[in-house]
Amino acid sequence: MKPVPARQSRTIQSSIVLPPDTNHLGTIFGGKVLAYIDEVAAIAAMRHAQRPVVTASIDSVDFLSPVQEGDVLTVESFVTWTGRTSMEVYIQVMCERGPGGERHQTAVSFVTMVAVGEDGQPVEVPPVQPETEKEKELYRTAPERQRIRKQRKYRSC
Amino acid sequence: MKPVPARQSRTIQSSIVLPPDTNHLGTIFGGKVLAYIDEVAAIAAMRHAQRPVVTASIDSVDFLSPVQEGDVLTVESFVTWTGRTSMEVYIQVMCERGPGGERHQTAVSFVTMVAVGEDGQPVEVPPVQPETEKEKELYRTAPERQRIRKQRKYRSC
Amino acid sequence: MKPVPARQSRTIQSSIVLPPDTNHLGTIFGGKVLAYIDEVAAIAAMRHAQRPVVTASIDSVDFLSPVQEGDVLTVESFVTWTGRTSMEVYIQVMCERGPGGERHQTAVSFVTMVAVGEDGQPVEVPPVQPETEKEKELYRTAPERQRIRKQRKYRSC
Amino acid sequence: MKPVPARQSRTIQSSIVLPPDTNHLGTIFGGKVLAYIDEVAAIAAMRHAQRPVVTASIDSVDFLSPVQEGDVLTVESFVTWTGRTSMEVYIQVMCERGPGGERHQTAVSFVTMVAVGEDGQPVEVPPVQPETEKEKELYRTAPERQRIRKQRKYRSC
Amino acid sequence: MKPVPARQSRTIQSSIVLPPDTNHLGTIFGGKVLAYIDEVAAIAAMRHAQRPVVTASIDSVDFLSPVQEGDVLTVESFVTWTGRTSMEVYIQVMCERGPGGERHQTAVSFVTMVAVGEDGQPVEVPPVQPETEKEKELYRTAPERQRIRKQRKYRSC
Amino acid sequence: MKPVPARQSRTIQSSIVLPPDTNHLGTIFGGKVLAYIDEVAAIAAMRHAQRPVVTASIDSVDFLSPVQEGDVLTVESFVTWTGRTSMEVYIQVMCERGPGGERHQTAVSFVTMVAVGEDGQPVEVPPVQPETEKEKELYRTAPERQRIRKQRKYRSC
Ligand SMILES: CC(C)(COP(=O)(O)OP(=O)(O)OC[C@H]1O[C@@H](n2cnc3c(N)ncnc32)[C@H](O)[C@@H]1OP(=O)(O)O)[C@@H](O)C(=O)NCCC(=O)NCCS
Ligand SMILES: CC(C)(COP(=O)(O)OP(=O)(O)OC[C@H]1O[C@@H](n2cnc3c(N)ncnc32)[C@H](O)[C@@H]1OP(=O)(O)O)[C@@H](O)C(=O)NCCC(=O)NCCS
Ligand SMILES: CC(C)(COP(=O)(O)OP(=O)(O)OC[C@H]1O[C@@H](n2cnc3c(N)ncnc32)[C@H](O)[C@@H]1OP(=O)(O)O)[C@@H](O)C(=O)NCCC(=O)NCCS
Ligand SMILES: CC(C)(COP(=O)(O)OP(=O)(O)OC[C@H]1O[C@@H](n2cnc3c(N)ncnc32)[C@H](O)[C@@H]1OP(=O)(O)O)[C@@H](O)C(=O)NCCC(=O)NCCS
Repeated sequence: MKPVPARQSRTIQSSIVLPPDTNHLGTIFGGKVLAYIDEVAAIAAMRHAQRPVVTASIDSVDFLSPVQEGDVLTVESFVTWTGRTSMEVYIQVMCERGPGGERHQTAVSFVTMVAVGEDGQPVEVPPVQPETEKEKELYRTAPERQRIRKQRKYRSC
Repeated sequence: MKPVPARQSRTIQSSIVLPPDTNHLGTIFGGKVLAYIDEVAAIAAMRHAQRPVVTASIDSVDFLSPVQEGDVLTVESFVTWTGRTSMEVYIQVMCERGPGGERHQTAVSFVTMVAVGEDGQPVEVPPVQPETEKEKELYRTAPERQRIRKQRKYRSC
Repeated sequence: MKPVPARQSRTIQSSIVLPPDTNHLGTIFGGKVLAYIDEVAAIAAMRHAQRPVVTASIDSVDFLSPVQEGDVLTVESFVTWTGRTSMEVYIQVMCERGPGGERHQTAVSFVTMVAVGEDGQPVEVPPVQPETEKEKELYRTAPERQRIRKQRKYRSC
Repeated sequence: MKPVPARQSRTIQSSIVLPPDTNHLGTIFGGKVLAYIDEVAAIAAMRHAQRPVVTASIDSVDFLSPVQEGDVLTVESFVTWTGRTSMEVYIQVMCERGPGGERHQTAVSFVTMVAVGEDGQPVEVPPVQPETEKEKELYRTAPERQRIRKQRKYRSC
Repeated sequence: MKPVPARQSRTIQSSIVLPPDTNHLGTIFGGKVLAYIDEVAAIAAMRHAQRPVVTASIDSVDFLSPVQEGDVLTVESFVTWTGRTSMEVYIQVMCERGPGGERHQTAVSFVTMVAVGEDGQPVEVPPVQPETEKEKELYRTAPERQRIRKQRKYRSC
Repeated sequence: MKPVPARQSRTIQSSIVLPPDTNHLGTIFGGKVLAYIDEVAAIAAMRHAQRPVVTASIDSVDFLSPVQEGDVLTVESFVTWTGRTSMEVYIQVMCERGPGGERHQTAVSFVTMVAVGEDGQPVEVPPVQPETEKEKELYRTAPERQRIRKQRKYRSC
């Protein structure tokens, strides 16, 4: 299968943090950030694989600073590397404090998506063609991260 | 006030069309597309004005082709032009049919946002600095669109 | 096909403005009002056509005054006029400020709905029988509005 | 306090039954119908009392026939009778099967709402002025229903 | 059919009361509590019948004390008794005021669920095996409650 | 501060998987599972700390098998161990396939919650008193997991 440039899967989602996403102190639930991350990672993976995808796993996520109601949350992602049927998706979450406020990093993580057929079974995906320095660096370091994920999965069963 | 480059307000939001957004034929409600348009326009205007904003009006919207559950909807926008307190925001809605499908244009429109203080009263905004050809063209043609909006508003009262 | 009285498509929806509909100043998003408009217009059109419908377009909407959390928003609509497969739906949005407060007009617009078969293709609809003065006036002036919509659609492609 | 005509509290809400409201057989959850009932009863009571209200109780509800995704659900209500701070609200739920389908009765019930001040404490409400036959009949029979509600409440503690 | 112990249908759902569930005084809508009750009753009934279920009726509900945004609402339920195709489900709603606050009873009620086949027609369910004192008491008193429900249903038609 | 038994923070949430939670293959989004996990972990932590809490981090999550619309998802959790202001919360997600189906494990993870004052600053929490074998095992192994989390956080900045 022909390699797909990483930029082709680049996906951006900016949205306003609304009351249903926040607790009674007015700060966002971690779970809502995770739901945004998963949605954006799924779009990136679908753009790479041109197929439906399911979430196999998410790496650990540290929430670096609180996000308030009214802030703008921006999630950016692209596919960094592929196995046979799985794709590693890089995710960066940024927050603008209030209207037009400064940008802070909220979280960074990797989601592993697997392309599936209509029967939900894994199907093969094309490889990634990294182009920028960051894409190349993440591509190079991906197999080691994937190795750790496999170990940890066996441990958790 | 110092002009703000149009690119600084550029805002992108990709999202997956989910069942709550669709009717029982599986196609998206026009109202949901309009709600996405308004949210993205508000983010663009907040990035330009660095202030809270409210929607003063939306121009007419033609829905050119149906959007299905599972499609990816992408809304792109930027501030094209400003009055004293109002901003004209250009909005383009695109749809990818299914995972990784071809891009179609779904709708195009303009939203007028007004910057407000904590009391909800209009406050002044900086002008736009257009840079690309498209930005310049939309900047040049904005006053005529604004003139038509004012006429129509008087008519509707 | 036998004409259908305009009153048969009359549709009313009152609802309370809740936190998910509002920004952090506590006023409703324009996009939420547009989503309510589209839902009520769709019900009116389904009552007229006795068929599924899709939104072809919405005319421009001016938001005349802010709506607060806790207000009651009432959307009223009926089908004013039909083409072969399209219906023009008149929409009026009113707001009661707080519990039992005075009624203000929030917005007025026209939505064009098209009746479709299970395949999503346009199908014929019965004509409207206007009865009240307002219904007759809107019926009489509809073809001119429809002409403007067609022009504007060609321009936007 | 001056009596308020029952028609002044009349409230109507038509909405389309959407996927989030339905189970995997495509029929609406009873709980969603109850949530619509409560919202419409609250608006009716606010229109009567011109004050915030809270739900004190709902009488038993029998669901007479299933409601499908895509149906139009219409809830109608008005205040039938008042105590010192409480209002009895009559609720009727009707369903149109599919676009423009026949109307069926889905449920009928009574909700008791209490007007409250900003501190959440009960405050007095004006009496009802019934005008139509149905309004008069429900007004006349209300004290007996209220008596039964009081008994049942002591039993449930 | 083999009796199913009441404990097998026991179902618990704790959730945080969020802004979309509350009015502008910050207290929960009665309708949202009713929606939670119905969902938990449906899970209990499905666990008993091992089949899809629909809500036939809910008994009257008295809301004993207000529930605030940020409180934890806990709904507990189990199947107390069965007819041929119907199940009586006991529901208890408790509220913890704020983080880790004291538990108050919010409401108690009975929901009648009916097991249905893929065609929506009622199908037989196994009987209940009550074990604890409370289960036995509710089992013993169920037929009288069911008799009252049938009377009231005929009255309401 | 007096130790709090682990059972006091035990929290259970069963809910039905609905269309808004699922993709167009009818299986749940990973992000929705993560949102449920975070909500239940927050309740467990609030029950332990008797204070508001925020999510500091979530460990990696492997999604072991797909969850379908109509399945019942059950999240169980309790606080295993505390630092000065942070709590480690154990989370187990189980799925019943269809009404009354067999239970499968969907995911297992640990969430770290931090107790905060009204100003959002961390405040001290009482220690955990583990009682069962599982509680003791998780208590014993917690400091090592916490050490790994700290390392990984420095790496991610
Ligand atoms: C993801 C899933 C399809 C993998 O199925 P499986 O039977 O383990 O299939 P395989 O062993 O062939 O694995 C398929 C790929 O997924 C990868 N994978 C599986 N589990 C993984 C994990 N936890 N983390 C990272 N990658 C994982 C495998 O390494 C393999 O990659 P490769 O093809 O690139 O070499 C399956 O576990 C599943 O359906 N999980 C639920 C997905 C889901 O619905 N998530 C949403 C919330 S539940
Ligand atoms: C928008 C709003 C603040 C304008 O208030 P106003 O009293 O008309 O104030 P002004 O006349 O000073 O107008 C302020 C600016 O808005 C512009 N404006 C007002 N109505 C407009 C319309 N319908 N379309 C385009 N621009 C409009 C004016 O031209 C003026 O622009 P300028 O300062 O760049 O010259 C006011 O109408 C409002 O609050 N509307 C509701 C906004 C809202 O809450 N929308 C969400 C749904 S209800
Ligand atoms: C609306 C739609 C069915 C029209 O299809 P089409 O191929 O243009 O069909 P036609 O040219 O036969 O037009 C059908 C009718 O719609 C009318 N129409 C089409 N576009 C319109 C517009 N933008 N505004 C008003 N009327 C419009 C035509 O005038 C015609 O009316 P008539 O039959 O009464 O004379 C099609 O554009 C569509 O599916 N759009 C997406 C609808 C949708 O899903 N909306 C939700 C959000 S995307
Ligand atoms: C519930 C329903 C299936 C009963 O259908 P029906 O034609 O009355 O069937 P039956 O007369 O055979 O009654 C079936 C069982 O339900 C019981 N039942 C019916 N209505 C009831 C009510 N209001 N309260 C308590 N039990 C009721 C009957 O007593 C009977 O019980 P049994 O089999 O244990 O003796 C039907 O009324 C229905 O589909 N209602 C809508 C359900 C729904 O979709 N609810 C969600 C909101 S609309």
